Amino acid sequence: MSADQQQDQLPGDSRFFKRSGPFALKRLLEATGAEAVGNADAETLFEGVAPLHAAGPRHVSFLDNRRYLSLLQETGAGAVILGPAFADKVPEGCTALVSREPYLAWSRVARLFHPLSPAQEKRHPTAVIGENVTIGRQVEIGPFAVIGDGAQIGDGCVIGAHAMLGDHVVLGAGCRIGAHVTLSHALLGERVVLYPGARIGQDGFGFAVGSEGFETVPQLGRVILEDGVEIGANSTIDRGSMRDTVIGAGTRIDNLVQIGHNARLGRCCIVVSQAGVSGSTEIEDFVTIAAQAGLIGHIHIGRKARIGAQCGVMNDVEAGADVIGSPAMPFREFFRNVATLRKLSRK
Amino acid sequence: MSADQQQDQLPGDSRFFKRSGPFALKRLLEATGAEAVGNADAETLFEGVAPLHAAGPRHVSFLDNRRYLSLLQETGAGAVILGPAFADKVPEGCTALVSREPYLAWSRVARLFHPLSPAQEKRHPTAVIGENVTIGRQVEIGPFAVIGDGAQIGDGCVIGAHAMLGDHVVLGAGCRIGAHVTLSHALLGERVVLYPGARIGQDGFGFAVGSEGFETVPQLGRVILEDGVEIGANSTIDRGSMRDTVIGAGTRIDNLVQIGHNARLGRCCIVVSQAGVSGSTEIEDFVTIAAQAGLIGHIHIGRKARIGAQCGVMNDVEAGADVIGSPAMPFREFFRNVATLRKLSRK
Amino acid sequence: MSADQQQDQLPGDSRFFKRSGPFALKRLLEATGAEAVGNADAETLFEGVAPLHAAGPRHVSFLDNRRYLSLLQETGAGAVILGPAFADKVPEGCTALVSREPYLAWSRVARLFHPLSPAQEKRHPTAVIGENVTIGRQVEIGPFAVIGDGAQIGDGCVIGAHAMLGDHVVLGAGCRIGAHVTLSHALLGERVVLYPGARIGQDGFGFAVGSEGFETVPQLGRVILEDGVEIGANSTIDRGSMRDTVIGAGTRIDNLVQIGHNARLGRCCIVVSQAGVSGSTEIEDFVTIAAQAGLIGHIHIGRKARIGAQCGVMNDVEAGADVIGSPAMPFREFFRNVATLRKLSRK
Repeated sequence: MSADQQQDQLPGDSRFFKRSGPFALKRLLEATGAEAVGNADAETLFEGVAPLHAAGPRHVSFLDNRRYLSLLQETGAGAVILGPAFADKVPEGCTALVSREPYLAWSRVARLFHPLSPAQEKRHPTAVIGENVTIGRQVEIGPFAVIGDGAQIGDGCVIGAHAMLGDHVVLGAGCRIGAHVTLSHALLGERVVLYPGARIGQDGFGFAVGSEGFETVPQLGRVILEDGVEIGANSTIDRGSMRDTVIGAGTRIDNLVQIGHNARLGRCCIVVSQAGVSGSTEIEDFVTIAAQAGLIGHIHIGRKARIGAQCGVMNDVEAGADVIGSPAMPFREFFRNVATLRKLSRK
Repeated sequence: MSADQQQDQLPGDSRFFKRSGPFALKRLLEATGAEAVGNADAETLFEGVAPLHAAGPRHVSFLDNRRYLSLLQETGAGAVILGPAFADKVPEGCTALVSREPYLAWSRVARLFHPLSPAQEKRHPTAVIGENVTIGRQVEIGPFAVIGDGAQIGDGCVIGAHAMLGDHVVLGAGCRIGAHVTLSHALLGERVVLYPGARIGQDGFGFAVGSEGFETVPQLGRVILEDGVEIGANSTIDRGSMRDTVIGAGTRIDNLVQIGHNARLGRCCIVVSQAGVSGSTEIEDFVTIAAQAGLIGHIHIGRKARIGAQCGVMNDVEAGADVIGSPAMPFREFFRNVATLRKLSRK
Repeated sequence: MSADQQQDQLPGDSRFFKRSGPFALKRLLEATGAEAVGNADAETLFEGVAPLHAAGPRHVSFLDNRRYLSLLQETGAGAVILGPAFADKVPEGCTALVSREPYLAWSRVARLFHPLSPAQEKRHPTAVIGENVTIGRQVEIGPFAVIGDGAQIGDGCVIGAHAMLGDHVVLGAGCRIGAHVTLSHALLGERVVLYPGARIGQDGFGFAVGSEGFETVPQLGRVILEDGVEIGANSTIDRGSMRDTVIGAGTRIDNLVQIGHNARLGRCCIVVSQAGVSGSTEIEDFVTIAAQAGLIGHIHIGRKARIGAQCGVMNDVEAGADVIGSPAMPFREFFRNVATLRKLSRK
């Protein structure tokens, strides 16, 4: 099988994604808050979404990056969602759907055409459910899922195949637990999403040096995942030792990320793939940690700070600061250092 | 659910942790070897452990870091475990429990109040056990566990839900295999702990370049995990190609760590999260490898060397050396380089 | 158990590896294309493979690295596979098997003595198979495997214990899906190998910033793994958002690697452990990405480029270039920088 044979297909392969529609232009405008430029007919029907290069007259497409302007000018799309700066760049016959938040508008149109299936009241007969488990309405439990004694599962949760929920875990409404997830010693808010293979609530890396070697220190805290938190595939979040490990509401964590025991992340933080946060570090709201960055333990990262990719953070970072490098320093200083060293080396 | 609502709770949530006690002061002193300062009553009862800021008169607390001295002075704890240097800093009414190994003492008190449940003789009816498997006494096997033909499971082992043990693996007494672990081609000593999602014994990354592309090289070694080894969640340890991959007794490996084929780690090493050791590298006893460090293959790391976080090690490291940076260099040199470059850039 | 007790054993422990043979020298020469130096008897029988230091007269051994020459001179092996440069270095009584591709020759001899078991037509009774699933001949399905509705499984595939294949995934002939793999929204070519715990096809890390926090952007693409692709243990490959994530034929990906949505890798690339490729990055054929390297999104890496360990790539890389450092720069420049800085710091 070559990639070429497989690739020439629109997004939303109907084998894998539910489809809805068609929808009239006015429905798209309602869903997005975008405005149609020119004399487009509000009743025009659209059938789906497609990238600029592949879209036809019944497709909605999207532009948010100036580097793809040439694709816009050649697109066959019936409509394109874009920001005000690009509104006059659409080719003839294409309707510009202008939004100040074009990516958000795009996201909503894509969801309109490809809605998520709601959870169904369904329990696979192979699932093992413990004693005194409370299960809400419209809960979907997959094959070989294991739910421990005393667990509480809120309405509309989806528990994937082979997921393992330990005794007494609590899930708020609308959580989605991926296949092969391990979850224990944890309290989840609403709409928490755990991707496949995430490990939540195991012992932190804590031991004391004894005369005979290392002795494990009891890890007596929990993991708290607040509303809307998402944890990527194969990421690991250790439970606290003496207090809880806490991930604040809305925070998004990518794949293969490590969060150490007692760490606290605030609201709406972003932690990109393969980054790591060591134990007891505190991170305020709206912090971004880019891929492969590492933070040592017991430090404090201020609100809206941005930690660059592969950054090694050994000290507190002030609110709003942009740091990069290992050890971490302000972005400007880092790139000045790079330039200085290059110049000196060429002498 | 907000974190605030959930957090104001002492460690050891009884939903998740077994509790024991109360215990008299003299029992705590026996368990820890600490000495009580002042005229404390050896019969005073304690009910549990708590952090300094939350502890009450029936709690034991702990201090080992000077930065938390202000919390000590305000604590309501009945007793605090700490080192000799802080013995005279406890507030009135609080008993100082002085230990030269305060963290170890703390660990033992915490374990006293929150003992691990011993393995129970229990086999979940859904577990699939192969032919000619030898299972010791007091072995606990979880739902959907799979144990291959000819495996040997020592006394007191716990095999978690969905764990997969390949044919002929050997587990010494008292091993704890987490949920969703994959284990094959491996011999384990006693008291080995594998956290959820660890992958032990799969093929190493070995292939030869042929005329038609890459050809997989047979990986004919095993993984040997000696007594007391612990491997973190979602870490991966490849089996050897021509000799064994060996992790020495007592070594602790954190989450998301990669150990390549034929690598050998000595006794009581520490490998922190997201670090990686490439194939055929040899690491002596008591080596520490900090988070996100990487070691190339076929090198030798001397006894008690310390590899800093994010360090990139391309050459042998001498016994006792402290290295950091990428490429690795002595700590002192690294930080001198950082200072030099900063100074030159500012000119 | 000490490592010493366990290690003194030849590779290919018969508990874990199938054995075949003995084979005559002429059979080895046929299998490898190597030439025997001197007057070796083509009928001499060999029983297995062994490393230089442990091999006896009925073993074939191997040398490809000058650093092990002293072991060659002392080996008791009956024959050694090696390159022309070492042909005259074998001790008396040992036959040199000379190959211009000694590692490949070695690989084939090792496989001859330790063949892979072919897939058997076998379905564990606990496996859950969905509706309208197409299963080829000689397909082996392990305990607790889950195969979704409409999936297509080619001839000779092996599906490991606890693997989860989502609805409508397609597997070409001869694929091997490891234990605990999660696979969805994906089309696989022939002979694709997924190691335990690999996560293929989950949502990419895509969200838009709304007034109430982040909103997930629908991820409407797929994952395409072409013929012969191998993906390591616990690696994660997100499906595309608007186009497919594609891994080209023959490409080998090691453990704990992250591939972001819409990324495209060409043919016969090598991606070593803990490296990460961000979304929408395009990588041509025969590119090597060493351990712990990271590539930002939306860049282009030319054919046969080599990205060094821990490299941080923020810009396009030309075909054939060797880069290292963070930010990435040519190898030569990187090591000149290192030397310059060391010199300046010592002043």
